[in-house]
Amino acid sequence: MPVDSASALQWLSDHSRETARFYSTLELLAWDQRTMLAPAGHDWRGEQMAALMGLVQCRQQDPARGERLDLLEAADDLSAEEAAAVFHWRREYDRAVKVPPELTRAKVIATTKAEMVWQQARPANAWQMLEPLLEEVVRLKKEEAACLAAPDQLPYDVLLDEFEPGETAARLDPLFDELAAGLRPILDAILGSSRRLCERPLAGAYPVPAQQQLNRAVCEALGFSFESGRLDVSAHPFSCAPGPRDHRITTRHCESNFLESLYGVLHEAGHSLYMIGLPEAHWGTPLGSYISLGVHESQSRLWENMVGRSLGFCRWLAPLAKETLPGLNGLTPEKLWRSVNVVAPSLIRTEADEVTYCLHVILRFRLETALMDGRLEVRDLPEAWDAGMEELLGIRPDCPANGVMQDMHWPAGAIGYFPTYALGTIYAAQFYAAAMADLGGERAMDARMAAGEFSPLLSWLQERVHRHGMRYMPRDLVRQATDQELSPRFLLEHLTRRHHDVHGI
Amino acid sequence: MPVDSASALQWLSDHSRETARFYSTLELLAWDQRTMLAPAGHDWRGEQMAALMGLVQCRQQDPARGERLDLLEAADDLSAEEAAAVFHWRREYDRAVKVPPELTRAKVIATTKAEMVWQQARPANAWQMLEPLLEEVVRLKKEEAACLAAPDQLPYDVLLDEFEPGETAARLDPLFDELAAGLRPILDAILGSSRRLCERPLAGAYPVPAQQQLNRAVCEALGFSFESGRLDVSAHPFSCAPGPRDHRITTRHCESNFLESLYGVLHEAGHSLYMIGLPEAHWGTPLGSYISLGVHESQSRLWENMVGRSLGFCRWLAPLAKETLPGLNGLTPEKLWRSVNVVAPSLIRTEADEVTYCLHVILRFRLETALMDGRLEVRDLPEAWDAGMEELLGIRPDCPANGVMQDMHWPAGAIGYFPTYALGTIYAAQFYAAAMADLGGERAMDARMAAGEFSPLLSWLQERVHRHGMRYMPRDLVRQATDQELSPRFLLEHLTRRHHDVHGI
Repeated sequence: MPVDSASALQWLSDHSRETARFYSTLELLAWDQRTMLAPAGHDWRGEQMAALMGLVQCRQQDPARGERLDLLEAADDLSAEEAAAVFHWRREYDRAVKVPPELTRAKVIATTKAEMVWQQARPANAWQMLEPLLEEVVRLKKEEAACLAAPDQLPYDVLLDEFEPGETAARLDPLFDELAAGLRPILDAILGSSRRLCERPLAGAYPVPAQQQLNRAVCEALGFSFESGRLDVSAHPFSCAPGPRDHRITTRHCESNFLESLYGVLHEAGHSLYMIGLPEAHWGTPLGSYISLGVHESQSRLWENMVGRSLGFCRWLAPLAKETLPGLNGLTPEKLWRSVNVVAPSLIRTEADEVTYCLHVILRFRLETALMDGRLEVRDLPEAWDAGMEELLGIRPDCPANGVMQDMHWPAGAIGYFPTYALGTIYAAQFYAAAMADLGGERAMDARMAAGEFSPLLSWLQERVHRHGMRYMPRDLVRQATDQELSPRFLLEHLTRRHHDVHGI
Repeated sequence: MPVDSASALQWLSDHSRETARFYSTLELLAWDQRTMLAPAGHDWRGEQMAALMGLVQCRQQDPARGERLDLLEAADDLSAEEAAAVFHWRREYDRAVKVPPELTRAKVIATTKAEMVWQQARPANAWQMLEPLLEEVVRLKKEEAACLAAPDQLPYDVLLDEFEPGETAARLDPLFDELAAGLRPILDAILGSSRRLCERPLAGAYPVPAQQQLNRAVCEALGFSFESGRLDVSAHPFSCAPGPRDHRITTRHCESNFLESLYGVLHEAGHSLYMIGLPEAHWGTPLGSYISLGVHESQSRLWENMVGRSLGFCRWLAPLAKETLPGLNGLTPEKLWRSVNVVAPSLIRTEADEVTYCLHVILRFRLETALMDGRLEVRDLPEAWDAGMEELLGIRPDCPANGVMQDMHWPAGAIGYFPTYALGTIYAAQFYAAAMADLGGERAMDARMAAGEFSPLLSWLQERVHRHGMRYMPRDLVRQATDQELSPRFLLEHLTRRHHDVHGI
């Protein structure tokens, strides 16, 4: 056992980095499963992932880590960075020692199966196929929460804290209530506007290879390099980093709508730019890791929405799109801009507009808190989903594929994860407002976008957000980067301003 | 510790299967490295592979395995199958305990780097870039052989035995001498024939997507299913199985020559059909593994050459190729057949014809035996290569890319591996002769090929070869499957017969 802080820190860093070699391999297995693996390969893949996950957990709960953490928590010579690293190593260690390996293994197997069945059940509208597998996933998540709960901690908060350190349902409720209340008048004004577009324009026939070419060009312009990255196709778009210089994003293509894929790519590229901006020297340790899924999502939504749906960005994108895709001859930047800012309550979250998006998330937040505290059973989910959609968005799903089965997240075991989507949107608006203020205001920013100059914004984000890794908790990071307490008002102001311009409200 | 054989065997099987979960993950990392990984990702990939290899080796040298093997070797109640499994577990265990983990780690890092540099050095003709890395690989292989050698065992034989259990350079020398001596008159006769084609016919422009479509159709006809497999592109074609139902083959495309890719795919599909035919219940244990690289190669060369270059197969293939590839209007089966049976001494082994192929391999066998016993230094390899080519094939490489740098094998650390290519060719001819005799003779076999009926041959191979896993040593497997001792005469007879038909010799 080391007796000084420096050697204990070094030991923990080395140990974390070795664990990261295995964990990043697990990420590659998951990437391959979703992009490359042939159907008959899924059973064995589940076994491979369970075995590797078991190994990672075994390393994470190594008692030698606990001993070093005890020593470091009693030390008085740690820098603020080192103390932050110790704090997050402790969180990870406690999570690892409190969940038995058999439960982790059962969870990996159950979620691998549920994800695979979801891929078949969704197109077949076969909720009955998915229900028993999702029940098993929820049962295992409850078991997990019971293992991890501090005294008086609610099961849902246990799961939420894993994704968004420090958050609770009780803290989110007023934030989300304020947001929902603020969105209502904006949505009503748009729906009543005479300028409102009621259907998706720019429908056409866009060959997949041309879409891919456009998507790649946009990624590169933002700062995503194919020297250290890939762009592939999967049923549900995602991003991952199976190595510090190995950034992979995915999309899906619809031949009649190139915007779905393109804005999905903007979103995933935003995630990747965050990962690229983490300090490589700390890769595999807390100071080289993302702080929360909410902050992760803030980066994706910032590039997708704040940047991607601005008039300036459309001025840059329109000529590039015309050059790459046949059939866009009459496209003007303004037409493109209106097309990507259509607002209409719709069934699918991933296709939702900026205004209604958070309402989808609030629905899931309410359903999963109810699932976790026993107010709702899995078998009653489809009905509760449809009722919630009606209440929040005023529409009902036509089928389970467009309702309760639209997302892979619950089958994949990601419960307590959805609120990070709305939180990330709130963070994104607050970051973007601060960046605009620092970079000369809205008009200057718009001119930069129109010229394809994305690097000043990226540098601001790298400086204020990315490079800190897990140094600050999410709300502290937001406060420090923006000089303001976290508030949904930046998002509400942004939406009011944008849809004033687009829809004349 | 168990006291009875049954529980010791069960323990070893379970342990092997868990190791296979990690080892097959390593295979996926390697597949991804060669087909998907972005250039900047290679350093971390090397670290991931080294970490996982270290884990696998640690499991392989688990003393608990040694204890069970001691017990089983003293037992008198083992079936012949069980005894074969114990024999191969012992070989693997001894190899694992005798090589220190640091050496394994150094080897993985060195070969990963050398492979990566090879990928750049070959197109740049930059032998100087590769030389120091190859020197390091050879140095580490000598170190490895020294760790593993039995008393009086030559370093080369130590390496060879890993790939071809039971073989030695001393046993191979007469076999290869007989083969080389027999090939000479066949080659001379062809080179003197008036019917001889001197250049590759069927040159044209074949778009890659159409080639891919043809390749996939051929794979499926042979019995390779895309429900449990993939076909991708890599610089050097290979096959692998990162799971019992996850068979992956690769090819490279030349737009002016679809035959290069197609016959490469036939070759790799042959490898995969062997893996598919191994008993799945024993996957991850000796009875579910391939016995040797020579037997593996026999399956690839059987489908590529015995089947693929027969007139019957060309009768089936020609209309399919015409349907898929533009610009093949005038193609007849006979023309195709002559095209795939051109014989000419050439520089690149993987493009060599059936007659000269083994001469390429014999060159490498001679060079690597000399490297390993110190008669040759890495820096002298290019010159020795060129001299050997002149002696055996009568031609000299125009540049290192077409000479000593054409193969990835040595940079990848595969020394002692090349002879299995010639051995496999010898086995293939002997298997095919026996299969023809059992299935009605040459004419009946040719008619089946022309009708696209490949399953009787595949079933014969599954029954006589595939399903046995490691039950029999290679020469025993050949004897049992064909009722004959191993001999190059079946190959020489096959070549004489075929080139009598093609070239009128």
